[in-house]
Amino acid sequence: MDLGNKLEGTRATIETEIESFFSSAPPLNNSLDFSEQVDKFIRRNSVASGNGGPSRVVCVTSGGTTVPLEQRCVRYIDNFSSGHRGAASTEYFLKAGYAVIFLYRRGTCQPYCSSLPDDPLLECFELTDEPNIQVRQEHSEAVKRAISENHAAVVEGLLLKLPFTTIFEYLQMLRMIAIPMSNLGPNAIFYLAAAVSDFYVPWQSMAEHKIQSASGPLNMQLAQVPKMLSVLRRDWAPMAFCISFKLETDSKILLEKAGVALKKYKMNMVVANELSSRKEEVVIVTSDGQIPVRRNKAAGVDDVENPLIQLIVERHSAHIESSNL
Amino acid sequence: MDLGNKLEGTRATIETEIESFFSSAPPLNNSLDFSEQVDKFIRRNSVASGNGGPSRVVCVTSGGTTVPLEQRCVRYIDNFSSGHRGAASTEYFLKAGYAVIFLYRRGTCQPYCSSLPDDPLLECFELTDEPNIQVRQEHSEAVKRAISENHAAVVEGLLLKLPFTTIFEYLQMLRMIAIPMSNLGPNAIFYLAAAVSDFYVPWQSMAEHKIQSASGPLNMQLAQVPKMLSVLRRDWAPMAFCISFKLETDSKILLEKAGVALKKYKMNMVVANELSSRKEEVVIVTSDGQIPVRRNKAAGVDDVENPLIQLIVERHSAHIESSNL
Repeated sequence: MDLGNKLEGTRATIETEIESFFSSAPPLNNSLDFSEQVDKFIRRNSVASGNGGPSRVVCVTSGGTTVPLEQRCVRYIDNFSSGHRGAASTEYFLKAGYAVIFLYRRGTCQPYCSSLPDDPLLECFELTDEPNIQVRQEHSEAVKRAISENHAAVVEGLLLKLPFTTIFEYLQMLRMIAIPMSNLGPNAIFYLAAAVSDFYVPWQSMAEHKIQSASGPLNMQLAQVPKMLSVLRRDWAPMAFCISFKLETDSKILLEKAGVALKKYKMNMVVANELSSRKEEVVIVTSDGQIPVRRNKAAGVDDVENPLIQLIVERHSAHIESSNL
Repeated sequence: MDLGNKLEGTRATIETEIESFFSSAPPLNNSLDFSEQVDKFIRRNSVASGNGGPSRVVCVTSGGTTVPLEQRCVRYIDNFSSGHRGAASTEYFLKAGYAVIFLYRRGTCQPYCSSLPDDPLLECFELTDEPNIQVRQEHSEAVKRAISENHAAVVEGLLLKLPFTTIFEYLQMLRMIAIPMSNLGPNAIFYLAAAVSDFYVPWQSMAEHKIQSASGPLNMQLAQVPKMLSVLRRDWAPMAFCISFKLETDSKILLEKAGVALKKYKMNMVVANELSSRKEEVVIVTSDGQIPVRRNKAAGVDDVENPLIQLIVERHSAHIESSNL
């Protein structure tokens, strides 16, 4: 068969896989509520922004998805991700005037909380004379900033936080966000920092009950999660500015794999991270070339997300301009 | 071979498996610090208690252990456990005059925090006039209780909190706690509520780098984690009062499996939980028979841990008495 037919064939296969993933996934709880919240947020933020320009909305995904191994789930496969990148990036997007849909793994880092200890309530406060509690001096600024800035962003309707746990929830929620976001055309960004499972157990082939350990070693066969980036780009939100992330532990294969993802899924950018150095440096891979982005060590508290989001905002502006020509 | 020889053979196999588990596990970070903290806590709490009786120490384990699938870990298998049982039980043990070593999965429920929302810092506080923050009225009592009671228990040296993540950390830490706790003889309790992985990938056979998804479906073979309950009972702390937990999703096999565990590992009690009803009812399986323990619904806020710990404290007192005969 010729190349055109072959591409058609591949597309049909991916579509069948995706269709089968969604139709076999356990349905999302409260999907009507969810949908309503998202639609309302996008509608409210699609009118002209305060500075007169068109308003911009970014969907930031953050943290790892889980893959249940049993229907009445006791065990699951998880992807390591603190959610730090997504949370910090959300702060910079808000600062740059974007409205943010923060689709995050339950329990991972929240915006404005990155400089707090793991268990802020118990570690940051103390009782003074009986009825009063106060913030310990050393955490005072960080706690006030977390509470006030988070509160401001939520109350002003610029930050919508939506938690997920499983790969089934994540992909259904992403689709329910992406389709209404397509109404924003090129003003929408997808900043896909979540660590999404590559492998899963299809619901219908999953054990109902907890797998028993008495019967010796465990053999598992996991199927590949269909690559949703292609449909996000092609069908869900074709005009949006799309940024995906590639994490590897082996720096030798990282840039090559990021380049492949850029072309294969027609991303606008792929952010390449190496596990051990990801807080110091990332490389942005675009069709124009590779741009290393480093944390400004001289600036003390500065992080790699600050220059990263600056660069993304610039490129997004250019994307909007060229789309409106 | 006769039964004696067969038992000897089985014991030798388990010991070889355990030896090989520990010798191949990645060594614990700061193991000297850890050991010092534990020894100091046990020494301090092994002198006679305030009420003149011998002091009692319980090691409560809580939350699930992870099993890394790669040495530079991106993916891991996790066991679902909020840590609610362990955290609530810790409160009741403290109330009953015990000192508690709380060995918990990083990020899971903490004692005194069970009635707080998921993200207490951002959800419980608000700014009033600029420089001040205050607790929202509706969370006021819960927040004050969490901060003051946690603080009191830690400051008085009655609560030592030690976080783990992986199965390798958990079992090394448990051994480092159990051996010095054996000095307390029958006054020690092990309350093993953590959801411990049954299967793992031995460190030396683990992929170094992130497993690639391009090569199709993933086949995994996992080995069984050696059952440490036998060595805990026999070698680490033979006089202690030992309580293990059995969680199943299939109520038909639960009590039988709990009974097998009681005999096989010579536990003093096995607490049998069924996943969907575990907050309402558990069954305590002992060599004298089965005792159902239910939440007292009439009492409003009462939970199943309250009557559970009451019963354990009674049985522990009897255990101490009979050991001292």
